Amino acid sequence: MSGENQETTGCGGSDCGKGQAMDAKTDKDGQIVASLSRIKHKLLVMSGKGGVGKSSVSAGLAIQLADSGYRVGLLDVDIHGPSLAGIMGVKGLLQVSAERKVTPHEVDAHLKVVSMQSLMKDHDQAIIWRGPAKAGVIRQFLSDVDWGDLDFLIVDAPPGTGDEPLGVAQTVPEAKAVIVTTPQDVALSDVRKSISFCRVIGMTILGLVENMGPFPCPCCGKPLALFKSGGGEATAGQMEVPFLGTLPFDPLVVKACDNGQPRGLRESGAAFSDAMAGIVQKLLGSLSP
Amino acid sequence: MSGENQETTGCGGSDCGKGQAMDAKTDKDGQIVASLSRIKHKLLVMSGKGGVGKSSVSAGLAIQLADSGYRVGLLDVDIHGPSLAGIMGVKGLLQVSAERKVTPHEVDAHLKVVSMQSLMKDHDQAIIWRGPAKAGVIRQFLSDVDWGDLDFLIVDAPPGTGDEPLGVAQTVPEAKAVIVTTPQDVALSDVRKSISFCRVIGMTILGLVENMGPFPCPCCGKPLALFKSGGGEATAGQMEVPFLGTLPFDPLVVKACDNGQPRGLRESGAAFSDAMAGIVQKLLGSLSP
Repeated sequence: MSGENQETTGCGGSDCGKGQAMDAKTDKDGQIVASLSRIKHKLLVMSGKGGVGKSSVSAGLAIQLADSGYRVGLLDVDIHGPSLAGIMGVKGLLQVSAERKVTPHEVDAHLKVVSMQSLMKDHDQAIIWRGPAKAGVIRQFLSDVDWGDLDFLIVDAPPGTGDEPLGVAQTVPEAKAVIVTTPQDVALSDVRKSISFCRVIGMTILGLVENMGPFPCPCCGKPLALFKSGGGEATAGQMEVPFLGTLPFDPLVVKACDNGQPRGLRESGAAFSDAMAGIVQKLLGSLSP
Repeated sequence: MSGENQETTGCGGSDCGKGQAMDAKTDKDGQIVASLSRIKHKLLVMSGKGGVGKSSVSAGLAIQLADSGYRVGLLDVDIHGPSLAGIMGVKGLLQVSAERKVTPHEVDAHLKVVSMQSLMKDHDQAIIWRGPAKAGVIRQFLSDVDWGDLDFLIVDAPPGTGDEPLGVAQTVPEAKAVIVTTPQDVALSDVRKSISFCRVIGMTILGLVENMGPFPCPCCGKPLALFKSGGGEATAGQMEVPFLGTLPFDPLVVKACDNGQPRGLRESGAAFSDAMAGIVQKLLGSLSP
């Protein structure tokens, strides 16, 4: 076991083997620099714990920024549980050109999406990759996508402080972190680890977003604290990182993401969309002081 | 980057370096076999997606089994976000004997707990380990804990289909899987990957547990489908794995786990406890036909 770094069960048509990822390092480095130089801001959306709604928040940020007129790319580097293609409602496999460049799915003129999900022919297949192979795939993903000129690249990283966020951080050293949590202690404990991770590797933290906040009771409208309340802001204060805001819990968000129609949330007047607009205003303020 | 498999930022007092994990392989294999031979049933609690309440379910299963008179060990192998020590309310660092054996925390005569959390002096510290180092740590954890005789070892694995569940499966080939999901599609899509993972590596699946099911409205009592409903049972049917039951969503469970008092749930008459009792009955039935 100790000498074996990689084990895969197929990858359904992509060029993602370790041999590919490791070849021509200098050439690949050049491609990454060239590709990333056309992107103004790179945001890494992280969470210490899974299931805090990081992908919904990534999608919400991307939609809000695109609808404000920015050119936005949304990239999913979750190898084990990619979900952004489904959430954004993009269908079909990604196209790879003769020059081995990946063309993103275009949601509209302002919003492009690349999800690991769109490289897998069989969505139920498990990818049993070991860590270093994952870092190679992420590096390749960042170099080989033809994003064109973007104002924002939003990278939805898998949870934790392991190979994947480290792969992004090493490949895109200028990326800045947005950390997502829910209000309960067990999530906040992991958030402190994410903050410590960013500090160890020297990544700027733009701030903390608290997701799954109060849920208005359908009968009386009184806010129900499903996952407790207020923990995100308190933790941001203790750890001295900016607090960007709280997003309310809303079963409509669960449904909209399952149905691949997160854009419908704004039309339905969901409080989630208003709260997201406030968070984006704070983010924009911190990026251009 | 490619030649480097491991990167750590300290581990606060444990003997968990790669060198340690790799030394005396044969001796370690013997220790693992000897240690595991005293444990009747080994269950691996898995989820495709994080945040589905896998740790709460692991804790609930362990408590229910212990309270039914079985001798139970509960092990947390989540390196990036260990939470079982907090959930079970055990405090203090684990003790390591002169023979380098780890003594579990004893909750009572029937229930022992070992959490990665109890090896870290600084709980906010991020562990930035790459995959193969993680597999070594898990192997060491399984060999070096002095469980004694147990009826059940419940292993709470981190989400996904990567190094950690693979490490457990390779070290404990007779382990059987309990897969946890929530009802929404984005979780179920990842559950199908977990099922496919188990089938690829030849691990028996005992069944699927649906967590975060209906939440009774505090005003009218009508069940609210916060994360949709029915998806767990439908997916179990499609994928031909046993369905073990649905656990209702209950903010009391969130609080009890945050407070380290999950045992209090039964006294408070929480529907979660009754549902868990039903799930354990089904599990016991499938283990001794």
